[in-house]
Amino acid sequence: MQILKNSTDSATGIIESSYTLSQAQLQKLLLLVQEVCGITATRQLMKKMALALEKFVPCAKALIWIYNPEKESLWTRINKKNFEVPQTESIAGSTIISLNYLYLSDPGQDKNFHKEADTIPGANTGHILCFPMISKENNVIGVLQLMNTKIHPITPIVVNLISEWAGIAANLFTATLKNDAIKNAFDSFVDTISHAMDTRDYILAGHSRRVTLYAMEVAKLMGLSAQEKEVLQYAGLLHDIGKIGVPELILLKDKRPNSDEFQMARQHATLTRELLERVQFPKELEPVIEIAATHHERINGSGYPKGLKGEEIPRGGKILAVCDVFDALSSRRPYADRMPVDEIISILDKEIGESFEPFIVYHFKNISLDRIIQIVEYGHNKGIESEDLEFLKKYTLNDLLNTDSIKSDDQQKIETTFMRYYSRIYRG
Amino acid sequence: MQILKNSTDSATGIIESSYTLSQAQLQKLLLLVQEVCGITATRQLMKKMALALEKFVPCAKALIWIYNPEKESLWTRINKKNFEVPQTESIAGSTIISLNYLYLSDPGQDKNFHKEADTIPGANTGHILCFPMISKENNVIGVLQLMNTKIHPITPIVVNLISEWAGIAANLFTATLKNDAIKNAFDSFVDTISHAMDTRDYILAGHSRRVTLYAMEVAKLMGLSAQEKEVLQYAGLLHDIGKIGVPELILLKDKRPNSDEFQMARQHATLTRELLERVQFPKELEPVIEIAATHHERINGSGYPKGLKGEEIPRGGKILAVCDVFDALSSRRPYADRMPVDEIISILDKEIGESFEPFIVYHFKNISLDRIIQIVEYGHNKGIESEDLEFLKKYTLNDLLNTDSIKSDDQQKIETTFMRYYSRIYRG
Repeated sequence: MQILKNSTDSATGIIESSYTLSQAQLQKLLLLVQEVCGITATRQLMKKMALALEKFVPCAKALIWIYNPEKESLWTRINKKNFEVPQTESIAGSTIISLNYLYLSDPGQDKNFHKEADTIPGANTGHILCFPMISKENNVIGVLQLMNTKIHPITPIVVNLISEWAGIAANLFTATLKNDAIKNAFDSFVDTISHAMDTRDYILAGHSRRVTLYAMEVAKLMGLSAQEKEVLQYAGLLHDIGKIGVPELILLKDKRPNSDEFQMARQHATLTRELLERVQFPKELEPVIEIAATHHERINGSGYPKGLKGEEIPRGGKILAVCDVFDALSSRRPYADRMPVDEIISILDKEIGESFEPFIVYHFKNISLDRIIQIVEYGHNKGIESEDLEFLKKYTLNDLLNTDSIKSDDQQKIETTFMRYYSRIYRG
Repeated sequence: MQILKNSTDSATGIIESSYTLSQAQLQKLLLLVQEVCGITATRQLMKKMALALEKFVPCAKALIWIYNPEKESLWTRINKKNFEVPQTESIAGSTIISLNYLYLSDPGQDKNFHKEADTIPGANTGHILCFPMISKENNVIGVLQLMNTKIHPITPIVVNLISEWAGIAANLFTATLKNDAIKNAFDSFVDTISHAMDTRDYILAGHSRRVTLYAMEVAKLMGLSAQEKEVLQYAGLLHDIGKIGVPELILLKDKRPNSDEFQMARQHATLTRELLERVQFPKELEPVIEIAATHHERINGSGYPKGLKGEEIPRGGKILAVCDVFDALSSRRPYADRMPVDEIISILDKEIGESFEPFIVYHFKNISLDRIIQIVEYGHNKGIESEDLEFLKKYTLNDLLNTDSIKSDDQQKIETTFMRYYSRIYRG
């Protein structure tokens, strides 16, 4: 247990008192520990930890700050957004510098008072109590900040117990930060390799990322769960990983190709499966393999490599199939312009119920035009006017194609604005 | 708090009593929670959790079992090795089936008694107390098993407190198992991609894995830390990742190649750096980038891509340099046999102080011959006689080359045994 030095310092409002925690209160503390143990993501732990603190300590609001030693700053989440302050500003920052708890009965008068970080909107600023979170390896992890706390006086037993809580929090955040780091490493490695694979081929540059972005739009419109979206995202990035080409595996195949190219095309979907089967995905990500490996299957069984039909193809595979074809046809090639969007959509429409699942094409056509332009232009960095994006946001691919449904004033503007970007030509 | 149903069931040895935990004991419990919070690896948590339990509950030994629902088995660590039992065997197994805590005053008489899992070597088998670990998502995570516990009688307060501890343990293990899963995903993806890259080129098949295995041998002989070894392992697997080839990056280079091949060779080390810089490695793995990117640097500055000298090259890069050359020359190619080991070593020796760091070549020559053969033969699955490995284990590359130092009886045998494998020819 970490006992802070000045626990009887009257200057900070601490006096000796009989405020001791009962067995029942200690059991409550343990119950709160149970609630926050076992969370692996930092943001989620922040949220749960704040709620647990608010239950345990009488206060209007608990804020959890995480310290970034490289940037010498602290960040937290306010209104679902990251909020960052330099360690030289805000009361939490001064706690990081002093490495001691801090009790302020009139924080508004403190020189470190930060009018955004240290205020609860719509409430008077009351007593603030801050504790540094120091891990058992003696690393400074962040600050627990209790806003408008009603604990008064702050007795040594309160200081001991909250600093014990701060120690537990520090250790739990150490684990979530480590977990976030390895998750980031995995995600960025997947993205880097997928992107590097694509850029070996000029035509495919950016293809996997764009297919993934389209798939995320369809997933949003279909109301897929966060878990399904995560799986689809990995599958999108990895669907062409088989193109890394593994000659020894190709040599092991016993089927003779009808034509070299056709066989190579079939091979890449099979190789995607074989490669991904060697990756030890966490259980919840295992469907990535089947989805990535079925992006060339067609619902009437005419696809490859297995000729799967209808329900045999996972929903994610069907989504990737549509996005893959749209991206291939809407990409600029060295030898040809993009295919006009109406032609691409009529190809998709013609194959509804044959190659493609009807409701997936339906949802694809409901993607808003601002997203289509942003994805089509992904990686070109030529800029898109924000008023054009605002305008295009109101319409979908459907609106672009069926302008009858739109009032005549806007008909021309939709097409002109969309084509301003869709027909843009790049050199270099 | 999870209160088990039969907490007053006298059949299992529980009676009402005045055994209540004091405030001091509860504080001790919190202190123990602090000790086990923030660990991200399952094995390490198992160890710490057992130690914490042994401190908290009077018992001879605490065992932590983790449940594998797919295999319907439980595993733990005994004598630094994984130990697994089906859930239908052992007392922990019966706890998983009943999902209730279990107290046995004479466990040797129980039908589920497992003579390895449920005994402490060299001690009489005494009272055993088992608690299922059930997470807050109601998943069965495993079992806490207290061997030869001296708590008697088992009061409801004891049951409540240990089951609370079991709940905390379940949540903490949920987090470590998730963390292990994502770490495995990252590691296996790195390995899969590195191996797939290698197998695009027949000559390089298995190259990155072999270089990594040699580097691990050198690291062991040099006494590198676990952290340094982990970094070196990733760097070994990823040192040739630049060969994935990124044409757009190659096109962006402004230098003109002297010869295409030479330029391509320089490119791959540069591309390795550029690719790995896009991966968000955890802080402790960041040196992977510099090490992987410097495997073609030479200490006299004659290497590429940067022509770094001596201390400018990280130690890991110098280790990979030696291992990379040894593997290239000792690999069988379609058009040539392996180079004889004495020739390879004399090439390395000649470059000591020029290309290679003297003490790294020194340590490389101290790798035992069983490991050399196992690595040279890595992936061929042709089998190596275990008595040959036993024999070769006693000698190093140095011994093979400087047979003067070996008594004459063994001189011939070392060479014959080594060459039996080194000169083996593969067809397919």
